Amino acid sequence: MRERACVREVGPRDGIQMVRTVLATERKLTWCRRAAKAGIREIEVTSFVPAKVVPQFGDAEAVARGAIALGGFTASALVPNLKGAARAIATGLPRINYVLSASEEHNLANVRRTTEESLADFGRIVALRNAAPGPRVTLGAGIATAFGCTIQGAVPEKRVIELAIRLAEAGADEVIVADTVGYGDPGQVRRIVGDITKAVGKLPVACHFHDTRGLGLANVTAAIEVGVRAFDASLAGLGGCPFAPGATGNIDTEDTVFLLEQLGFDTGVDLEALVALRHEVEAWLPGERFSGAIARAGLPKTYRRPGVAAP
Amino acid sequence: MRERACVREVGPRDGIQMVRTVLATERKLTWCRRAAKAGIREIEVTSFVPAKVVPQFGDAEAVARGAIALGGFTASALVPNLKGAARAIATGLPRINYVLSASEEHNLANVRRTTEESLADFGRIVALRNAAPGPRVTLGAGIATAFGCTIQGAVPEKRVIELAIRLAEAGADEVIVADTVGYGDPGQVRRIVGDITKAVGKLPVACHFHDTRGLGLANVTAAIEVGVRAFDASLAGLGGCPFAPGATGNIDTEDTVFLLEQLGFDTGVDLEALVALRHEVEAWLPGERFSGAIARAGLPKTYRRPGVAAP
Repeated sequence: MRERACVREVGPRDGIQMVRTVLATERKLTWCRRAAKAGIREIEVTSFVPAKVVPQFGDAEAVARGAIALGGFTASALVPNLKGAARAIATGLPRINYVLSASEEHNLANVRRTTEESLADFGRIVALRNAAPGPRVTLGAGIATAFGCTIQGAVPEKRVIELAIRLAEAGADEVIVADTVGYGDPGQVRRIVGDITKAVGKLPVACHFHDTRGLGLANVTAAIEVGVRAFDASLAGLGGCPFAPGATGNIDTEDTVFLLEQLGFDTGVDLEALVALRHEVEAWLPGERFSGAIARAGLPKTYRRPGVAAP
Repeated sequence: MRERACVREVGPRDGIQMVRTVLATERKLTWCRRAAKAGIREIEVTSFVPAKVVPQFGDAEAVARGAIALGGFTASALVPNLKGAARAIATGLPRINYVLSASEEHNLANVRRTTEESLADFGRIVALRNAAPGPRVTLGAGIATAFGCTIQGAVPEKRVIELAIRLAEAGADEVIVADTVGYGDPGQVRRIVGDITKAVGKLPVACHFHDTRGLGLANVTAAIEVGVRAFDASLAGLGGCPFAPGATGNIDTEDTVFLLEQLGFDTGVDLEALVALRHEVEAWLPGERFSGAIARAGLPKTYRRPGVAAP
């Protein structure tokens, strides 16, 4: 039995928040349905931001309800504040992901308040979640710009670890360490994420890497070494933050699955089905930049396919 | 004092052996001169293969002599056989790199003989080197397809380690473990390269990775962990093997320098000068595919420039 590792598709959220094309709700749901059919078990399906800020997410409620109806995977949504959390919880989503920034300047640009104000808001979201009727909603807590910031520059590592501890103490079910702008390197990942995993005890720690400077998969490898087993990724390497200058795509879902499988983990994903979906998504988004190596180069002859013994 | 790590430019050899444009000798030498000026200390400047097999290297003698005359860096050349070695040594190059393949099928496709025949040839090259007048020529010994082969598929790890030991015993000054087709992953690298470093004792071990499936820099990170401190790379991620179907570019020189510097190593390279050279090389090679993230995304605000304290 191989150990499991989880690749979470965040393409329908992070992947499309900066693209030119507003995707039809039906296409977003096709993305989810086919990713789930390929074996993806968690998908961040939308973002509960104001539609006037990101028009792409004007259909957040419809996508969330549609994704829940599809079944077969855990649907989650990003929420930037209490109002977004209330909207997301009202749809019946089983999981929501809150995010604040370790960089004060990015937090101000992204959600127009200080990081301490965002922390206080997280407390209110936990209370809202705890008071909500129905099954308990899982609450992820992301720390953006954890490895540096294109606005502020360096971010103190101690501050990132302090934020992780405070989010955990406040009631997060998971801490997600995010390299929003692709500044992280494997040494930093081992240090910061390693310290966080120790500091938060048994609480799971996930990573969210962008591949802006080519180190995305090296960072995944480093995170695996310090015990992380869940990674956000976008099909075709889409993604970026509208309020972080120079931010580009997430790590590519297909390549991340490939790496984890090669490292001996079971992702449960049929990579060929995922590559087929990627090509469909590319056709929906004319003029965008797509990245990723497996879709271009193909799988090695030596690749172990699901349910098939290694050659 | 940071520990040194060496990035070797192999663009004028591996980088251009499959491109459409035959570069003028003067441009190849400009490449070397400006890479050296940017701080690169070793450059594989050409390949002593028959010009009828790879017309790009019809000027091997002129490039070798021109590179030696430039000074400021160690110029080396690839030699596929005894005849190539004799030609290279005659030019006065201080270093030559021999290569054989761990995959029998790739060895047959590449140099039309078995791996054992290539090993025997290496013995003759060592004898030739030992008998040559003048300063002792450094002899690198590369093991191609060390992580798998697009023709043969899997390559037994034991065979790779055995070949490393036999090349070391035969007189190699360094063993270069090469992922010719981009099949390697960080787990394999730690295992195979780690075993080789133990097996060859104090003999230096270098790595030569291709980034065909996106794992190139993750593999560099893994090799660093098992003690490797020298890496082949090509400007703009050029490269490929004409006799390995599906082989694409080497790891990108700029991105490799960036990774090593971020990991705390001193490469001695001025990355901005290297990126400027990259753009010039791109202009010389119309219609080629270029890769690499730093040239596209730029350096982080937090990057420590040579001679400048980290911010």
